[in-house]
Amino acid sequence: MEKDRLDPWGETSVVDYERLHSEFGIGRMESVLPRFKTPSLHMRRGIDFGQRDLGRVLDAIENNSPFAVMSGIKPTGTFHLGNKMTADDMIYFQSLSKKATVFYAIADVEAYNDNGLTLQQSSKIAVQNVADIMALGLDPDRAVIYKQSQEIKVMRLATIFSAAVTNNMLRAIYGERQVGLYLSALIQAGDILMPQLAEFGGPKPVVVPVGADQDPHIRLARDLAASYSNDFGFVPPSAIYHKLMKSLDGATKMSKRNPASSLTLEDTPASASKKVMAAFTGGRATIEEQKRIGGEADKCPVYDHYLYHFALDDSYAKRVYDECYGGIRMCGECKQELATIVKKFLEEHRKKRDSLMKDAEELMERSRKMLDSMAR
Amino acid sequence: MEKDRLDPWGETSVVDYERLHSEFGIGRMESVLPRFKTPSLHMRRGIDFGQRDLGRVLDAIENNSPFAVMSGIKPTGTFHLGNKMTADDMIYFQSLSKKATVFYAIADVEAYNDNGLTLQQSSKIAVQNVADIMALGLDPDRAVIYKQSQEIKVMRLATIFSAAVTNNMLRAIYGERQVGLYLSALIQAGDILMPQLAEFGGPKPVVVPVGADQDPHIRLARDLAASYSNDFGFVPPSAIYHKLMKSLDGATKMSKRNPASSLTLEDTPASASKKVMAAFTGGRATIEEQKRIGGEADKCPVYDHYLYHFALDDSYAKRVYDECYGGIRMCGECKQELATIVKKFLEEHRKKRDSLMKDAEELMERSRKMLDSMAR
Repeated sequence: MEKDRLDPWGETSVVDYERLHSEFGIGRMESVLPRFKTPSLHMRRGIDFGQRDLGRVLDAIENNSPFAVMSGIKPTGTFHLGNKMTADDMIYFQSLSKKATVFYAIADVEAYNDNGLTLQQSSKIAVQNVADIMALGLDPDRAVIYKQSQEIKVMRLATIFSAAVTNNMLRAIYGERQVGLYLSALIQAGDILMPQLAEFGGPKPVVVPVGADQDPHIRLARDLAASYSNDFGFVPPSAIYHKLMKSLDGATKMSKRNPASSLTLEDTPASASKKVMAAFTGGRATIEEQKRIGGEADKCPVYDHYLYHFALDDSYAKRVYDECYGGIRMCGECKQELATIVKKFLEEHRKKRDSLMKDAEELMERSRKMLDSMAR
Repeated sequence: MEKDRLDPWGETSVVDYERLHSEFGIGRMESVLPRFKTPSLHMRRGIDFGQRDLGRVLDAIENNSPFAVMSGIKPTGTFHLGNKMTADDMIYFQSLSKKATVFYAIADVEAYNDNGLTLQQSSKIAVQNVADIMALGLDPDRAVIYKQSQEIKVMRLATIFSAAVTNNMLRAIYGERQVGLYLSALIQAGDILMPQLAEFGGPKPVVVPVGADQDPHIRLARDLAASYSNDFGFVPPSAIYHKLMKSLDGATKMSKRNPASSLTLEDTPASASKKVMAAFTGGRATIEEQKRIGGEADKCPVYDHYLYHFALDDSYAKRVYDECYGGIRMCGECKQELATIVKKFLEEHRKKRDSLMKDAEELMERSRKMLDSMAR
């Protein structure tokens, strides 16, 4: 990590989360955690390590007043575990209140720009992505899904915001970047602030679940909310930050460049199993040594997969951890065990997702009509 | 004018049009002028001094195949003579073929960003602007009017284009600018290239009538047309360039900052008359001297107003010019004469415009419905 900058587009590896509090002003979870009656898996396990203004969202939950949860995906055909992590958080917040509405952006223009997918191609993928989040638990009755290529309200905000930012502001937040990345940052600010437009009932708390590396987008959106608070009444958006899971090849952030290093919801059980079995681990050089001094779960991507996604039971996650450090659990069997869980999860997820494709299409269609009917 | 750059946002004063051919590669009018059967007033008088790829549009006219004419306005409440000049050109090209369609962009987000007008405020102004161009002769049956805040197809193109440009490219064309201006340049490229989308019948020649200072936008749009010719089939857009009329205070470009220095279609006859009578002229220090050696029409904004807009008859324009240089025409009476013509024009124009307000609203509504109904 560069000394004074987080990189939402790079392969940031955040090792020292403590510095994110002291240098970037990300709040601690401890200050708000007691207010959650049923903390999420990520919260209970310290994976959600930070927040900004999350109290605002807790107030809304306690007062039974409306708030929004905002996230999105680039529809490239891989719904990776980073997407799942964000989706899990989004669904968790949606479940906390009947007054919570999810806004989910399909960044199809980015999929064209970055991955060469036509809007027709990514449109099909998007339906599957939406079926994925429905299979993970999204309540479609309180969800608004839109495509970047179709949502003028977001683009209008981005264009408005472009007049308020200076190159110096953007450089301070993102470093020197091509104008295309700056524009995509402004569009994300539009995504984050759109739920507060009059069309959606006006100003309200919005929580954005993100990885630590996405903090620049949060800061920009918060700066812009302040700049335009007079005209739009924006309240500063809130965020909850999760740690970045280690990639199967041992890298500290899921690589977008090495598909073998990360599981996706599109993996067949067989290919997922293969990826897990080939993973880097926190194990010792020999079995003898591992038995003697124990493995290092804290450095192990396989353990991260248990902790972040696949050991749903806290006691089970703890057992894996203790057995590793206790020299009882060997890497081969540990990977085998994870592979079995992953295969079962993927099989069930795929079944659910496939059965939800029609509903996903309907949800998108319904959202589209609702958004289009809104006063211009 | 900076040595190697034109400034579409500044107060460029182009004195040496010759250099625009040699340094910027703007083609000469002479090479295409003979193909126009009924050259426009601006063409006949050398006001249109340059073009790019205008042959492509002439081919379409001759082959009776479709082409588009693209222009726009920032709806701030002043339709100045620069807007009229562009509108006159646009209407002229529309009149040359039944296969010509006008695309007119209302840059309402820019009016918000630059002038603090809400979209509601500028929406009303826009209706009047459209009534203005209808009063000037626009055929509403072959016109598509849209607002920047509402047209997702333009914004989608701008976002796509943002990935293809580098900061170095933009700096080379526009100089070092804030990202907001770069975005507005990309949006203008979207405006210029939208008429070639499949929804509008696909690739076709598009002519953009502009002032010399707007050439950077034309070059960017042409570069992007080339970059995306594979995906969209774009043909390079064409342009026709007019000279910049001298401002009434003697500046070489209409100043946006000094309202007294330029006439607008919103001026009352009385205020317009006052502006004309207070104008800087190309006259001599004394009447005696003017009679002896003649005035200098070539340096005179009052003469420019005859030439560019108000002396509809070529022989009348020539007479004003000759009488000035011949020492027969004195500045006081010359201004008086212009003021009378301007007052009459404004009275008649206002009557026409007021009677067209409902039609303008209908045209905008019709365009909106047509654009919205298009396949996403």
